[in-house]
Amino acid sequence: MESAIVVKPPIINVAAICGSLRKASFNHSLIRSAIDLSKQSVEGMSIQYVDLSPLPMLNTDLEIDGKYPPAVEAFRQKILQSDCFLFASPEYNYSVTAPLKNAIDWASRPPNVWADKAAAIVSAGGGFGGGRSQYVLRQCGIYVDLHFVNQPEFFLNVFEAPSRFDDEGNLIDPQAKERLKSVLLALKVLTLRLKAK
Amino acid sequence: MESAIVVKPPIINVAAICGSLRKASFNHSLIRSAIDLSKQSVEGMSIQYVDLSPLPMLNTDLEIDGKYPPAVEAFRQKILQSDCFLFASPEYNYSVTAPLKNAIDWASRPPNVWADKAAAIVSAGGGFGGGRSQYVLRQCGIYVDLHFVNQPEFFLNVFEAPSRFDDEGNLIDPQAKERLKSVLLALKVLTLRLKAK
Amino acid sequence: MESAIVVKPPIINVAAICGSLRKASFNHSLIRSAIDLSKQSVEGMSIQYVDLSPLPMLNTDLEIDGKYPPAVEAFRQKILQSDCFLFASPEYNYSVTAPLKNAIDWASRPPNVWADKAAAIVSAGGGFGGGRSQYVLRQCGIYVDLHFVNQPEFFLNVFEAPSRFDDEGNLIDPQAKERLKSVLLALKVLTLRLKAK
Amino acid sequence: MESAIVVKPPIINVAAICGSLRKASFNHSLIRSAIDLSKQSVEGMSIQYVDLSPLPMLNTDLEIDGKYPPAVEAFRQKILQSDCFLFASPEYNYSVTAPLKNAIDWASRPPNVWADKAAAIVSAGGGFGGGRSQYVLRQCGIYVDLHFVNQPEFFLNVFEAPSRFDDEGNLIDPQAKERLKSVLLALKVLTLRLKAK
Repeated sequence: MESAIVVKPPIINVAAICGSLRKASFNHSLIRSAIDLSKQSVEGMSIQYVDLSPLPMLNTDLEIDGKYPPAVEAFRQKILQSDCFLFASPEYNYSVTAPLKNAIDWASRPPNVWADKAAAIVSAGGGFGGGRSQYVLRQCGIYVDLHFVNQPEFFLNVFEAPSRFDDEGNLIDPQAKERLKSVLLALKVLTLRLKAK
Repeated sequence: MESAIVVKPPIINVAAICGSLRKASFNHSLIRSAIDLSKQSVEGMSIQYVDLSPLPMLNTDLEIDGKYPPAVEAFRQKILQSDCFLFASPEYNYSVTAPLKNAIDWASRPPNVWADKAAAIVSAGGGFGGGRSQYVLRQCGIYVDLHFVNQPEFFLNVFEAPSRFDDEGNLIDPQAKERLKSVLLALKVLTLRLKAK
Repeated sequence: MESAIVVKPPIINVAAICGSLRKASFNHSLIRSAIDLSKQSVEGMSIQYVDLSPLPMLNTDLEIDGKYPPAVEAFRQKILQSDCFLFASPEYNYSVTAPLKNAIDWASRPPNVWADKAAAIVSAGGGFGGGRSQYVLRQCGIYVDLHFVNQPEFFLNVFEAPSRFDDEGNLIDPQAKERLKSVLLALKVLTLRLKAK
Repeated sequence: MESAIVVKPPIINVAAICGSLRKASFNHSLIRSAIDLSKQSVEGMSIQYVDLSPLPMLNTDLEIDGKYPPAVEAFRQKILQSDCFLFASPEYNYSVTAPLKNAIDWASRPPNVWADKAAAIVSAGGGFGGGRSQYVLRQCGIYVDLHFVNQPEFFLNVFEAPSRFDDEGNLIDPQAKERLKSVLLALKVLTLRLKAK
């Protein structure tokens, strides 16, 4: 009797980062929803939420003897060990939030642990649904060498009725969930293509 | 005998803000130099340095009963009482720094205390001399309603020899000082034009 | 008997420029509507539509003996004689259209005839209603020294039901017309403030 | 006697596009130099210069019965048949030139013939060496779905002494040539990685 050997493709590890520190942030909800969706229907992808709140405000004077503060070291390790990234990026004043920029900058300190990896961005907000922040984040990505998914883009206007979220802040809109899933699939595809070095 | 009445124009109060928290920041040096230049040769302008380091990372959960944390309230008062702004904006990863974005965001919380005032930006750095950060800051300015000086722009490449700074970090390059002064004069002119409502 | 002398404020001359050459362009409709609104309800403002279609594609080899081609000279004269500008800027591929960029560039050739004047931007389109093009246009404005109205911004999503335009392409949505009028008023105010040199 | 079978990797076809129509354009020189370098020292890459001057100014009224004007069809075919792109992008007024934007827009008309391909950008100019135009081009690339090389970026300041070009406009600076070659190699690598679907 023969035994079948099934070679499973390796799991893609995604670090999910939210630019808002607010507890009730809709952008945080998008990450929770992405984690649920990945478990249900995106094979070969594992998303870990990475909390930005422990990070001190960037000041390179805090780097002593070539070492970063412990919270920064822990954050950098998580970035380093991820295959790709999912950013939930709220738009504050037509740009990314300070906590998100702070995280980008700490992880870019030498050695830059973002380098040469794939990333996708999702946003929830008023107006353009957070869209302007995404283009600023993409510009940061040129220097830190991130490869962003182009299409589909994901912007969610949270002020249009009916609400896309329930009272606990869970994403309930079927169309938005479908689009969010297609972002995850595009991130998976780009990550795999870029791994072919 | 008649007595002459000389009506002096009111002093323009400038809040100067530096996007770097580093002690030895060249961008901080630009503000020190601007303060010196304004005292020596720009009549009718008074520049006060506003330190961003006491500000907590923006999180609107910190707003309790419609009040901001004390350090934020103090910062907002200084912005409110200024006629215009001088930003020294380092470029980190092709955008503004987290401390600067954080300051922009806290002061934009209702009521937005930046609104309808003039501003100028100066930058020191490698490559484009910090230039990319200025365009991101200008985009934030659309929403918070700042009117930026267009010309002259001020970018200083700090890595080109000979050094534009002495060992104490003071700007010593005569051309750079002249350009910095012309930025201050342009800021003064724009501030006065916009006051004519 | 006394005669009353009424000093009327001078008329503000606005050059209105549309980034689309299409006959049925919704952005062209916005300019037609702005002209109507200015006649009905914005005192002291006269808007002239300036057609971009005669302009050749920019190539400085076409500048002979320091002279621009006749169509370019005629366009530059209209820009020079205007007090401020109203841009209707469609978004093509997340930026301004080629005809609009071409017009910006021809009028920026020495002497730059845009310099130090006020401007406002309106856009109609899908998605963000043309919004991304506005930020690219604002970035051009830094170098050619235009002072843009910050608030209100005007983006019109033309694909949302019900249609904001009638079958002849006339803007019929009352809210959109009110916002368009507020843009014109803001342009008038900024133009007058900047004239106070 | 054995016969060796050598499987040669397929040639990567690069379409090279220059945003300036000027005969003596330094950006055109960069493309000429890239073509020379690719023949001498980049195996498996063939660069074809694609002239933008025959393209009419974009106006979708020129699309009749679903057909594009002949010059546009010919251009679109060249884009469609290329594996990736090299843009030489001069900076006019802090953005891309009208001829380059026009080319982007024509080739993006349905079906978008840029889609899902790699690209690199080089620029020559004053100031930032054309850099600001590159970020506008990258923003267009999001929508038309181009994957840009992040690093190295290539900006060449043409006004710094000594001249990087000889009297015939040929790039002669060894360092600039080396960097230009490294851009081509990075474009080759990214193109091959993305082909692994």
